[in-house]
Amino acid sequence: MTFLVSDNTSGVHPDILAAIVRANAGQAPSYGDDPLTAHAEQLIRDHFGPQAEVVFAVTGTAANVIALATLLRPYETVLCAETAHIATDECAAPEHFTGARLTTVPTRDGRLTPDQVAAFARADGSPHSPLPRAVSIAQPTELGTLYSVADLQALAATAHAHGLRLHIDGARLANAAAALGTGLAEAATAADIVSLGGTKNGALAADAVIFLDPSLAGPRRLIQKQAMQLLSKGRFVAAQFVALLEGDLWRTNAAHANAMAARVAQVVSSVPGAVIAFPVQTNAVFATLPVTGGPSRTGAALDEHAGAAVELARYGGGGAAGLPQRFMAAFDTTEADVQAFARVLHAALIG
Amino acid sequence: MTFLVSDNTSGVHPDILAAIVRANAGQAPSYGDDPLTAHAEQLIRDHFGPQAEVVFAVTGTAANVIALATLLRPYETVLCAETAHIATDECAAPEHFTGARLTTVPTRDGRLTPDQVAAFARADGSPHSPLPRAVSIAQPTELGTLYSVADLQALAATAHAHGLRLHIDGARLANAAAALGTGLAEAATAADIVSLGGTKNGALAADAVIFLDPSLAGPRRLIQKQAMQLLSKGRFVAAQFVALLEGDLWRTNAAHANAMAARVAQVVSSVPGAVIAFPVQTNAVFATLPVTGGPSRTGAALDEHAGAAVELARYGGGGAAGLPQRFMAAFDTTEADVQAFARVLHAALIG
Amino acid sequence: MTFLVSDNTSGVHPDILAAIVRANAGQAPSYGDDPLTAHAEQLIRDHFGPQAEVVFAVTGTAANVIALATLLRPYETVLCAETAHIATDECAAPEHFTGARLTTVPTRDGRLTPDQVAAFARADGSPHSPLPRAVSIAQPTELGTLYSVADLQALAATAHAHGLRLHIDGARLANAAAALGTGLAEAATAADIVSLGGTKNGALAADAVIFLDPSLAGPRRLIQKQAMQLLSKGRFVAAQFVALLEGDLWRTNAAHANAMAARVAQVVSSVPGAVIAFPVQTNAVFATLPVTGGPSRTGAALDEHAGAAVELARYGGGGAAGLPQRFMAAFDTTEADVQAFARVLHAALIG
Amino acid sequence: MTFLVSDNTSGVHPDILAAIVRANAGQAPSYGDDPLTAHAEQLIRDHFGPQAEVVFAVTGTAANVIALATLLRPYETVLCAETAHIATDECAAPEHFTGARLTTVPTRDGRLTPDQVAAFARADGSPHSPLPRAVSIAQPTELGTLYSVADLQALAATAHAHGLRLHIDGARLANAAAALGTGLAEAATAADIVSLGGTKNGALAADAVIFLDPSLAGPRRLIQKQAMQLLSKGRFVAAQFVALLEGDLWRTNAAHANAMAARVAQVVSSVPGAVIAFPVQTNAVFATLPVTGGPSRTGAALDEHAGAAVELARYGGGGAAGLPQRFMAAFDTTEADVQAFARVLHAALIG
Repeated sequence: MTFLVSDNTSGVHPDILAAIVRANAGQAPSYGDDPLTAHAEQLIRDHFGPQAEVVFAVTGTAANVIALATLLRPYETVLCAETAHIATDECAAPEHFTGARLTTVPTRDGRLTPDQVAAFARADGSPHSPLPRAVSIAQPTELGTLYSVADLQALAATAHAHGLRLHIDGARLANAAAALGTGLAEAATAADIVSLGGTKNGALAADAVIFLDPSLAGPRRLIQKQAMQLLSKGRFVAAQFVALLEGDLWRTNAAHANAMAARVAQVVSSVPGAVIAFPVQTNAVFATLPVTGGPSRTGAALDEHAGAAVELARYGGGGAAGLPQRFMAAFDTTEADVQAFARVLHAALIG
Repeated sequence: MTFLVSDNTSGVHPDILAAIVRANAGQAPSYGDDPLTAHAEQLIRDHFGPQAEVVFAVTGTAANVIALATLLRPYETVLCAETAHIATDECAAPEHFTGARLTTVPTRDGRLTPDQVAAFARADGSPHSPLPRAVSIAQPTELGTLYSVADLQALAATAHAHGLRLHIDGARLANAAAALGTGLAEAATAADIVSLGGTKNGALAADAVIFLDPSLAGPRRLIQKQAMQLLSKGRFVAAQFVALLEGDLWRTNAAHANAMAARVAQVVSSVPGAVIAFPVQTNAVFATLPVTGGPSRTGAALDEHAGAAVELARYGGGGAAGLPQRFMAAFDTTEADVQAFARVLHAALIG
Repeated sequence: MTFLVSDNTSGVHPDILAAIVRANAGQAPSYGDDPLTAHAEQLIRDHFGPQAEVVFAVTGTAANVIALATLLRPYETVLCAETAHIATDECAAPEHFTGARLTTVPTRDGRLTPDQVAAFARADGSPHSPLPRAVSIAQPTELGTLYSVADLQALAATAHAHGLRLHIDGARLANAAAALGTGLAEAATAADIVSLGGTKNGALAADAVIFLDPSLAGPRRLIQKQAMQLLSKGRFVAAQFVALLEGDLWRTNAAHANAMAARVAQVVSSVPGAVIAFPVQTNAVFATLPVTGGPSRTGAALDEHAGAAVELARYGGGGAAGLPQRFMAAFDTTEADVQAFARVLHAALIG
Repeated sequence: MTFLVSDNTSGVHPDILAAIVRANAGQAPSYGDDPLTAHAEQLIRDHFGPQAEVVFAVTGTAANVIALATLLRPYETVLCAETAHIATDECAAPEHFTGARLTTVPTRDGRLTPDQVAAFARADGSPHSPLPRAVSIAQPTELGTLYSVADLQALAATAHAHGLRLHIDGARLANAAAALGTGLAEAATAADIVSLGGTKNGALAADAVIFLDPSLAGPRRLIQKQAMQLLSKGRFVAAQFVALLEGDLWRTNAAHANAMAARVAQVVSSVPGAVIAFPVQTNAVFATLPVTGGPSRTGAALDEHAGAAVELARYGGGGAAGLPQRFMAAFDTTEADVQAFARVLHAALIG
């Protein structure tokens, strides 16, 4: 049963699992020196341009940390939304690994604005505060919203004009590209470094750090190793990206998840009093539901009626302000799942 | 001329300088194993209780970092006000040295409340966010406001009930004690670790980290050394605390600064349209002045009329919201200084 | 073709791959809260005792780092052999993640002695050097040698008598247990924390950190997350350990690798002038071969005759003294592989 | 009484103390923006060249850490002698603050050779070991020995040819310059960054980090602040360097200490069986004394006869091999001190 709790409670897409099985033939050089890793790297260059350099990782947190460790020295700081995954869900791994501070700012819908970037860049140059060095945004944001290509261009132009680098957390970049109707590279327009997520896109555990500015790429393998992401049998991570990127699987999976989220939003909207909190642009739906007692009661109510365990806790605590209830669709969410959800929701909220 | 910019543009109180000169007699064991250091440690125990352990440092940032490094492991976090010195003025030294994150919250007047502590403590136990471990407050706060002894007891009770430790940044603890009419220890009631500042109290460079809970004190000298605060000729730091703490110099200096700040507040209040932003309880006055163009013009206007360079920049930037203009009195601020300031202010703002 | 270069150029044992495929059924809670993870944890408790706590990781480096981060604060230090993997092959990840120093000592055969532990523990208590806190050994060592159970008891007794903790890097613990004829727990007798490797034992990417002293286990999930090892689809790591530990696969694989290494040693010994450098007790053979020009020419000569690329570089550089040529057998090394190696070696060295 | 234990058991030279007292006039901008700091910086440029940039610190450990933090990222490593202060006496502060590893090598007399630098630089480029980035030497070494200007040129040429930076720990650089008959800059020929010590040269607490390659100097104040070395009343540190560097005080103090060490060496040499361990080129004398029971008994014997507490412990432990007994002369060591020492030594060792 699909709970819409997250897009990582799903398993692995059959084509990706088959690619892992196929990769298990004979011996191969270890630590990423194998042909399959070279193939996956080439596919990423096919998508992101011939200058792109890449290292692989097995968690989205790790990909973000490798990217930030490339950009930041301990006396520097990176701007991000207070709802950013790096700020709310990574147990301070970015700070611990880089020694640097995250500068968080509130946003309306998870997106930073050029004005916020410009204000951040206007540091006073004093040694009492860390030096602004980079901006990190998520595409799509953790609230499911999108930057348009023009948004990215404007944001990057402001960042670059102030000497700041732009990192894009693309844990769900495929969902952004599918929604924008662009390629992966266009969905990450003007970034210097991109974290590209495969796991939420149907892989087992596959993330990539893509250095679009090759001048940043020199130490990538040292940082990958020091971040404990250099797998000895690296071919099995590469195989997952080959399966996703060689054809259209990345887009098929992402577009399906987006479509299912749209259906979930329809269901939620049909509940009198329910309010969709942010534009449903990718595979996330945030909604305030008309249940007495607030979000935590919502989960309880759903549980009572259908045993659905709704992942509320992570969004009710932390530094970020409490968020509405979240429903996520994944590559394997079915229309039947949505209908089951609709029944549960109506039973719980309408009665 | 006194600019009221800060309480660290002053030099050293003559009695403290004389103590430094006196300390320069013959040979002494280095790295804190000398009799003068033992004497200073004993004086701190006389003030804070026989169980107290102490190491010395030469900046307030360092004292705070040593305290936090004692309390925090990299996967833990400490609550503080978003105006806290550790959050706004220490170039992320606490994060870099501990690897841990600061959790900052807005406050009305620089003071944390027991409710904020309780909310912080209610983490969900997930591994995605660092574990709440400590609360750090400043006494007085960076806005010049005070916790009463009862306030401290309530805050500490909440913290301790949730298994959190309480650190007090007492860079100006003498000012708090003078204002409260208590001893230094009472002004830091119920803390586990206190950073005690001597520098703003008239010393050259002297801060102490006081471990009121001796179970925390074991690694203090190792942390002091690793924090680059173990001076080879430590007797000269100790001498400063001996001069401050053996008699009443700490209180005399602090009470004088507080009294001068009260006079500054009178002067400011006499300007039509000027608004004192926070209760003037110690040696800081924050005020919004009625000058077209905002605080930066205020500084310019003062400059024009009297050459006063007002330290605005550090309070206009950073992560914290912009604060009103700050005026600080010090141990050596004179009535003549205040009258000169009054003339400048009236000339600039009234005409 | 098997090159005997390493035990991680092999792929995945078919039974483990099948377990991964089987794990891909339906939805499961993410981040290790799934039933398969609970099952794998229980199997580890079945092997190591009911008090054992565990977190999983996907590289041996990460498992070691999590273990050391549990034990060490930045002002502490851990003793290890100068040939230890943590000292020679982990790109200073232990130092970077913990902030602490490794204290390395030379050894005769990769094994630390109780005398070395006692000498390490006798620190002078000064703040100028980090505090001895733990001992980290590898079982088997990186040179393929073994600690007997009595050796472990003696080493641990000395460590514990001095207040030091014992970490065992068990990246190849299965090989040790197979060689000793013991269970996994006995092969790690008296350790406080064990890194248990699955990857070299036939898994895709699976390592575990086992807290035998549960008083150390509290922060394990926070450290796992901060070390970027908390996979969202954790069931696929757990599945690998279930396949290895539920039956005898761990021992079958390890015993086979050990037996093949013994055959390799026979082949090497049959070359006049070849010298086996260390007792061949597990799956590694270190040998000095009688080729003019030293080890690098050895590799070249092998290349000329058979295209074998021998992994010499990592053992010729680094902080450790240069080691002889290494040959590793794995779970999938065949008798035919050994015979092919014998032909290559004889062709290259005898002619 | 002077114990010859160290050159930091002395107090402050009267001229430096007078300069501190003189600095205590009126108000001054804080955090190094004062005229006296500018004056001290200019004096350093007068000595080291107009391109030199500088920040001040208050411990030699801190100066070294700031220098290394400028040069190293966490995945890089610096070569140093295993007797280097950064390796033996700084409680792993360099590793903790930079996240990077020190690569230590044994030396004959505390000095690195160009061959050792070249061997260090020949890393294999693998991600499994940190990247060689810098070389750190001490001038004079911790064993009191000197690099000639030609030695420095040769070492730096090798380092720079391999893309490595050269840091010189000049905690006693004045002693080196006095011994070489050169200026301070010549004694640090070809370095990229120099730690210049004032404390052992007669100051209270004054060290400087001098960036001879200004391209490295950009973040110096941020690193100084994050390293907790940016004193609010910075004028009092600057005053010490002004006193040392404006005239010849630095050389007078150092030359005197060197001369007194030569006298100590004469005394030691007059003991039958005593062996001077290293050439006595600056202010340190290392000697093996003919006392049954080894160095620790030597200290005991001295104690018995004259109450001299000899600082042996720090040189008998740690990672470095045990060193002979050390005797240090300082700026204030007198001929009478040497004669008293001679009497003690003869009484203890001869009869």
